[in-house]
Amino acid sequence: MDNTSEVVLTRPRLDTDARALLFTDARTANTFADTPVTDTELAEIWELAKWPPTAANTQPLRVLYIRTPEGKQRLLPLISDGNRDKTAAAPVTAVLAVDTQYHEHIPQLFPHKPDLRDVFAADSAMRDGSGQFNAALQAGYFLLAVRAVGLAAGPMAGFDRAGVDAEFFPDGQFRSLLVVNIGHPGENPWFDRLPRLPHTASVHWA
Amino acid sequence: MDNTSEVVLTRPRLDTDARALLFTDARTANTFADTPVTDTELAEIWELAKWPPTAANTQPLRVLYIRTPEGKQRLLPLISDGNRDKTAAAPVTAVLAVDTQYHEHIPQLFPHKPDLRDVFAADSAMRDGSGQFNAALQAGYFLLAVRAVGLAAGPMAGFDRAGVDAEFFPDGQFRSLLVVNIGHPGENPWFDRLPRLPHTASVHWA
Repeated sequence: MDNTSEVVLTRPRLDTDARALLFTDARTANTFADTPVTDTELAEIWELAKWPPTAANTQPLRVLYIRTPEGKQRLLPLISDGNRDKTAAAPVTAVLAVDTQYHEHIPQLFPHKPDLRDVFAADSAMRDGSGQFNAALQAGYFLLAVRAVGLAAGPMAGFDRAGVDAEFFPDGQFRSLLVVNIGHPGENPWFDRLPRLPHTASVHWA
Repeated sequence: MDNTSEVVLTRPRLDTDARALLFTDARTANTFADTPVTDTELAEIWELAKWPPTAANTQPLRVLYIRTPEGKQRLLPLISDGNRDKTAAAPVTAVLAVDTQYHEHIPQLFPHKPDLRDVFAADSAMRDGSGQFNAALQAGYFLLAVRAVGLAAGPMAGFDRAGVDAEFFPDGQFRSLLVVNIGHPGENPWFDRLPRLPHTASVHWA
């Protein structure tokens, strides 16, 4: 290692405003303005969220953007009572799902080890576990990408999972994980911020 | 909704350099420089990663930072052959784990519904599923937070999960999910970038 390459490879740090936008000041929106969200903005979210890493580059997350009135009418009965009004008001609601057949793409996505597809195909417990974990990782990337394009996200676990799958993914290949309202914040959009665990409970040292 | 509040609540967008740092240009490091990583930098990662949302604010992820020579010697035999050299070279390796007793913190973290602890306590399948999913979401936040503080992350699924749990979490409360090397990139740190799925395969519309 020579010093030149170390200097070149030192990475910049995210500035305070950007940290506020993604992490420290961003909040989950509970109301949404009428301001539309365009398909271009929705595509832009994925153009960010698709890049951070997944195991063996498998990328098992799929996104269904529901933004037509017809789509919303199919979705709303499947959302918990406490989440329904804000979901009706959000210009877009994304269903984040795992593709249970994600391993079929491995020869394309991990071309130096195409046979890994067969390893995944032969071990359903490993395949499902890796798919669930990596799709959830990508859901984390997705939520921060929504914020990065200047929109507010409202993730919700309160929905009828089997109902959403039957309605939107009837062939059974995709399985819903999270529903996310997306838009510009409306009136009084934020609840009081909830506490975070103390550092000593979350972070340990060895 | 009046126009004034809409204007106020329009959020900024992440600029191109910040997008490059976190999403579009960031890469998984496979070699690490000798440059130390301080405990202050490691704490700073969590001060970002702790903020984005989790279901019912449960925050089930725990981080074990392994940065002493003794800790590294305990870890290295449990890492896959192909990952061992880079793990030995990384100044810090984080074990990301789910706290299986995360629901015990609900009265503190979700104070308007403290009884939710008992709902989680009574339903182990729901509790474990929510814990796994939300810990993985937080792992996604964590990886982007590593990048945000100017460090490179090298997440690895290739390790002996049961062995890591037995060695570092012998009471069984935490269960390892992902091992992440952290440091400044070394010589030739990046592999060629692997392809991403075409937009039409990942993103769907309704």
